[in-house]
Amino acid sequence: MEVKEYVLSIANRAKRASRILANVSTEVKNRVLQIAAEKLIEYTQRIKEENQKDIEAGERKGLSKAMLDRLYLDEKRIKSMVDSLKDVISLPDPVGEIVKMWRRPNGLLVGKMRVPLGVVAIIYESRPNVTIDAASLCIKSGNAVILRGGSEAINSNRILVDVMREALGEVGLPQDAVIFIDVPDREVVLELLKLDEFIDVVVPRGGESLIRFVAENSRIPVVYHYKGVCHTYVDEFANLDMAERICFNAKVQRPGVCNAMETMLVHSKIAHLFLPRMCKKFMEAGVELRGCERTREIVPEVKPATEDDWYAEYLDLILAIKVVESLEEAIDHINHYGSHHSDAIVTDNYENAMKFLREVDSAACYVNASTRFTDGFEFGLGAEMGISTQKLHVRGPMGLEDLTCTKYIVLGCGQIRE
Amino acid sequence: MEVKEYVLSIANRAKRASRILANVSTEVKNRVLQIAAEKLIEYTQRIKEENQKDIEAGERKGLSKAMLDRLYLDEKRIKSMVDSLKDVISLPDPVGEIVKMWRRPNGLLVGKMRVPLGVVAIIYESRPNVTIDAASLCIKSGNAVILRGGSEAINSNRILVDVMREALGEVGLPQDAVIFIDVPDREVVLELLKLDEFIDVVVPRGGESLIRFVAENSRIPVVYHYKGVCHTYVDEFANLDMAERICFNAKVQRPGVCNAMETMLVHSKIAHLFLPRMCKKFMEAGVELRGCERTREIVPEVKPATEDDWYAEYLDLILAIKVVESLEEAIDHINHYGSHHSDAIVTDNYENAMKFLREVDSAACYVNASTRFTDGFEFGLGAEMGISTQKLHVRGPMGLEDLTCTKYIVLGCGQIRE
Repeated sequence: MEVKEYVLSIANRAKRASRILANVSTEVKNRVLQIAAEKLIEYTQRIKEENQKDIEAGERKGLSKAMLDRLYLDEKRIKSMVDSLKDVISLPDPVGEIVKMWRRPNGLLVGKMRVPLGVVAIIYESRPNVTIDAASLCIKSGNAVILRGGSEAINSNRILVDVMREALGEVGLPQDAVIFIDVPDREVVLELLKLDEFIDVVVPRGGESLIRFVAENSRIPVVYHYKGVCHTYVDEFANLDMAERICFNAKVQRPGVCNAMETMLVHSKIAHLFLPRMCKKFMEAGVELRGCERTREIVPEVKPATEDDWYAEYLDLILAIKVVESLEEAIDHINHYGSHHSDAIVTDNYENAMKFLREVDSAACYVNASTRFTDGFEFGLGAEMGISTQKLHVRGPMGLEDLTCTKYIVLGCGQIRE
Repeated sequence: MEVKEYVLSIANRAKRASRILANVSTEVKNRVLQIAAEKLIEYTQRIKEENQKDIEAGERKGLSKAMLDRLYLDEKRIKSMVDSLKDVISLPDPVGEIVKMWRRPNGLLVGKMRVPLGVVAIIYESRPNVTIDAASLCIKSGNAVILRGGSEAINSNRILVDVMREALGEVGLPQDAVIFIDVPDREVVLELLKLDEFIDVVVPRGGESLIRFVAENSRIPVVYHYKGVCHTYVDEFANLDMAERICFNAKVQRPGVCNAMETMLVHSKIAHLFLPRMCKKFMEAGVELRGCERTREIVPEVKPATEDDWYAEYLDLILAIKVVESLEEAIDHINHYGSHHSDAIVTDNYENAMKFLREVDSAACYVNASTRFTDGFEFGLGAEMGISTQKLHVRGPMGLEDLTCTKYIVLGCGQIRE
């Protein structure tokens, strides 16, 4: 009962703040972000001290090196939060934009106007910079945000939230536009997910189990992706040098992220030319290769792949490889085994490129580029709230504009319906 | 277990059909709709016979006159389904549209392309024309549709679905792009709502209890509105003749629909001028009036309103009336008591009009027009799948474009991420 009341009071405060935020000018919202940027620099020492507490607690709990690295803040990482705030300042304010407007035969002007969603909740793990990214995107788009970070980052998140709240306070805006859930209890999340009258959207970011928990228990619309099983298909008409560069980058540059390649598909007509050089390069970089039989006929060092490999999100230096007979087979494989996240074709053939773009059912479909670009910043949206592989509202990186919706405005001069 | 298998097989068939529908040319999709229009005329007699079975069953079950009227089909109503098909043919095909495209500093072209949602399920009551509207909008937007009509219209719906399926078959498209759930059992709906891997969106249309049942039990995103508590605010700067016409139309022209006015708000400065004439006109039309104390001081014939009246969706010739001190009070009242559906201001003051448009949190905000225009056809969207008062994906009437989503397409020339 206590948890219920705590969560309800937070949701209530956020909702009240959201009504004010919705009507704040771009100038004032940018001022908040500017002040926050200055405070981040001013408070660098304190932020590092709070972060140190999390690091020490994490070490005691035996967190992995990778986890501790994600948690860690130094001057450079604090500086990059400052840069990210400045990026958001420079983005156009989506609120109030008239997306389109048309005239009806009876003279009514009917238009669609962008307005904030209202209250956004984000449930995330480890990396403290998400706190600044989420808060700044929500403020700029006129939304209130409820932040529920991981318990392992609680001290770092707390001071970063304080920075944002102080900045709101200094320009006379309600501090509850950025509100932090300071209780590690999972029951809190469960209660939060029931409050569809207060919260307009929930964005879970983290491991698949967290995301499934949120998606399965939420009465509020959820924007999410479970995983990224990304493909690169090397077409029979590919420039093989380019294909090699793109596939290598997609797998090796940062294997632990959702837009890294997990399966490489190769057209049978060029497999004997392409696979030997490509596999050699991967093996030199320490990539474990698991291939279909035809791959293994060409490169015997490749281990055999099982059915499970086609579904796998390794997030590691492991790659599944399959030789396909046609573009159609490649597209079918991607739509069947993939996660509808990011998939690429390498080809010099125009028809094949267009067919791939049309028929691959993924949030981001690429021609002749690495799938690693699926990211709000790389797409030019500024920071991102998360990435969606769902179809409603937003598909792909969720940026500033996706934190708004449109309402109809209708301008008349006395029209009535006959 | 049997129900489970039946629903799963339907969802599976729809999903398979949707993959083909997604890539059909506008010309072929329009041919399907044209053939369906011709078949509706050809089958008029049979449709009337099937409809007669529903009418007789309804009479035996003791359905109300209003219900029977909604169910009833004659030449004129069949003709209007034909017209609605022709409207959909004339609408531009949203699929494949590049909504925007921009160039990144590294030369990547990043764009958003409209694609079908996939499989749409609609759960609706009584009116058989919804069958044709939903099927035609889904076909035109490249989606497969699962239709679950009310048991009272089952014979009418069955033959209308047959018309659409025959038309699909004649051009060689999979008939399962339009698929009908022929079992009245509510368990079927419950099973359907679990199939988020097959179905992309559910649209419930009907009474509030049906909609709540769907919204509360669905793991699939739901597009809906519970009710329409619509307001007209007569500002101190209103043209009172215009206000009288607009308010009368919004209440009386068709009181049983979701976009009819339920509460009228009147600025205190003009209340003594406006209320007597307006109330007289309403009372002459048989409208029961329930007002706040100040309303009753001016027009003593008005009955006293209770707190419940401000929340009420009468769907009848009943109107709540409140005198307010300011535009701000009117906006607060609408945002607090309303249903975020359709709300109007009548004013000649520019600032007040703009403030109302910005701050009223409703799917459709009007200046100087009747709220009765909130409708896909009236807004120029063609037919509609339903009306949404939610914020994600679509707000207001759900038309052809809202049956699509955008995916990112990224055109490179060998870009890799550094």
